[in-house]
Amino acid sequence: MPDKTEYMMPMEIEQRSFAIIESHLREITLPEPERSVLKRVIHTTADFDYAENLTFSENAVQIGLELLKNGADIVTDTNMACAGIRKEVLARFGGTAHCFMADPDVAAEAAHRGVTRAMVSMEKACRTLQKNLIFAIGNAPTALIQLDAIVRSGSQAPKLIIGVPVGFVNVVEAKEMIIRSGVPYIVARGRKGGSNVAAAICNALLYQLYRP
Amino acid sequence: MPDKTEYMMPMEIEQRSFAIIESHLREITLPEPERSVLKRVIHTTADFDYAENLTFSENAVQIGLELLKNGADIVTDTNMACAGIRKEVLARFGGTAHCFMADPDVAAEAAHRGVTRAMVSMEKACRTLQKNLIFAIGNAPTALIQLDAIVRSGSQAPKLIIGVPVGFVNVVEAKEMIIRSGVPYIVARGRKGGSNVAAAICNALLYQLYRP
Repeated sequence: MPDKTEYMMPMEIEQRSFAIIESHLREITLPEPERSVLKRVIHTTADFDYAENLTFSENAVQIGLELLKNGADIVTDTNMACAGIRKEVLARFGGTAHCFMADPDVAAEAAHRGVTRAMVSMEKACRTLQKNLIFAIGNAPTALIQLDAIVRSGSQAPKLIIGVPVGFVNVVEAKEMIIRSGVPYIVARGRKGGSNVAAAICNALLYQLYRP
Repeated sequence: MPDKTEYMMPMEIEQRSFAIIESHLREITLPEPERSVLKRVIHTTADFDYAENLTFSENAVQIGLELLKNGADIVTDTNMACAGIRKEVLARFGGTAHCFMADPDVAAEAAHRGVTRAMVSMEKACRTLQKNLIFAIGNAPTALIQLDAIVRSGSQAPKLIIGVPVGFVNVVEAKEMIIRSGVPYIVARGRKGGSNVAAAICNALLYQLYRP
């Protein structure tokens, strides 16, 4: 075991990391509570491009905080994003994190209809979860395409869309579709994002309500 | 449901994405099988910095493939990385993915000794898993510091270290420590990395053995 003086403990590392990140963001005018979300995304990626890419609809973070305080559930498009969300904090307020991607009925229906599992997952969430829903999408542009269709069909379930899929095909367009959807959003414009970014944004919201 | 012509299915998206990535890597001379690992990391992050950062010890990928073919287990430092690994492919060759971070005995021992859970997790893996081990570290620099100590103590368990923690404190130094450790490594030099990158590297190796 190395001598303890050789390293710092996780919370100390995190605090020092956020100070370093803040020192790099001096020219960025983004106010709180959005600023804390941006800093956590940079903490998760070490990628300052998010200072340019991360886009919030009006009061998106405040809307997300109200939703979470009132027990909203979170729906993800990967088990990885779901694994990264601090579910014990979410549960304090009555919420649960869901990912339906690996459900056998989702796979079967997607194969039968010739659509993606992500699309069927979004439909299943809106159909089966009788709650206000926050969607945290870090992987599948088709999840965003489907959410846009669900909103246009009149469903009130999606109350906030965290739209941060990563990739080179369909991703940029799907994110712009969400920006135009009328639903509150937090979107990383461009190609970047990921399941880690989706989870980080959820946790940035949760930590504004309660930090274990 | 949007008309099917509006989007592509995941495998088609992936193939087209890899073609786009390759078109951006024309000036990068990295040969196979390392090149496929780099491309999957960029596919996961949309971040071409990895073309500069990702560093392989001699034959690291070939060594990883041999380990996986012979049933090596993978140990991660986050449940998120563990969730992202294609465990059904790993299982075809006899391997299992482990993350001990949430184990109550790990938390208790870390608190008692005043060290990080990541450190105790690494010790637990080497003590309890009677196998060749691949470590995939995407978060905790202390996991790498501890692995270096374990190797220096003479343990033969760590056969390949995927060292890609992300962050601003201790991270750069911990990665350089692994590069000097004498154990085969795949390391993202600098601040960047993450649980998603750790999982992507594992999957890049697995997909060279079997693609579902």
